[in-house]
Amino acid sequence: MSSQIRRSEAMPTPQQMLDVAVEEARKGLAEGGIPIGAALFAADGTLLGSGHNRRVQLDDPSIHAETDAFRNAGRQRGYRSTIMVTTLSPCWYCSGLVRQFNIGAVVIGESRTFTGGHDWLAEHGVDVTVVDDERCVTMMREFIAANPELWAEDIGE
Amino acid sequence: MSSQIRRSEAMPTPQQMLDVAVEEARKGLAEGGIPIGAALFAADGTLLGSGHNRRVQLDDPSIHAETDAFRNAGRQRGYRSTIMVTTLSPCWYCSGLVRQFNIGAVVIGESRTFTGGHDWLAEHGVDVTVVDDERCVTMMREFIAANPELWAEDIGE
Repeated sequence: MSSQIRRSEAMPTPQQMLDVAVEEARKGLAEGGIPIGAALFAADGTLLGSGHNRRVQLDDPSIHAETDAFRNAGRQRGYRSTIMVTTLSPCWYCSGLVRQFNIGAVVIGESRTFTGGHDWLAEHGVDVTVVDDERCVTMMREFIAANPELWAEDIGE
Repeated sequence: MSSQIRRSEAMPTPQQMLDVAVEEARKGLAEGGIPIGAALFAADGTLLGSGHNRRVQLDDPSIHAETDAFRNAGRQRGYRSTIMVTTLSPCWYCSGLVRQFNIGAVVIGESRTFTGGHDWLAEHGVDVTVVDDERCVTMMREFIAANPELWAEDIGE
């Protein structure tokens, strides 16, 4: 195996990183929760932490997918080289998290069912990638159709 | 006692609401943590929840004072008429929380030692009051001077 291939394995693609977030979203759905997942990666592709929205499961409105992944990554001295991966465009709360902690890049599953602050993050120098992943779109579309009030609660509407 | 006086007691002043947040900040300091406190009030002055920064105490970077107060208030169906009171100008993370959940008003102890997103919130229709409370300024000034690295970590610098 060449070192080039090893490097390739060590640095996952946006799609591969997104798979971790999708798996978290599915866990949340299986728990009866809102199916949004996220994961924080180091620059070398190491997974620092992952998580999912747990408003319903823990009756805790502060646990969005991104804040859960951020918490689960533990205390870090800096975030500039980290990548926040999330199944859905980050809301203002989670966009604020990214901006305050200078997270360098955000990979987003989709922004069709909801658009948060990702354009604002890009304006402030964050490297933003929207994958437009059909799994993410379908999962959110079905969830919102079945649970419109819960979804409105989660985004403060 | 006239009903006017009763109404006055039921609806605390910004300074009185700030006292609750200052008490939380002092609790945090006594625990060896970062002395920032917050409290979420209903429109009628009822305290919904209060909290303080617990990065150090719980090794949890996601618990800022405002997010702790928000969590401790539990799930609410709407925040438009609520008031978030905090000893320090809310960072982008906490400003994002206020904007996403449409919290109607923010009362801030001081913005001299740190200025977050409160002007941005005002631009987006949030009723922002900066009390400029000397207790808050002194507490943060002394804390930052004694713990510059911890403070930098807490605001992602």
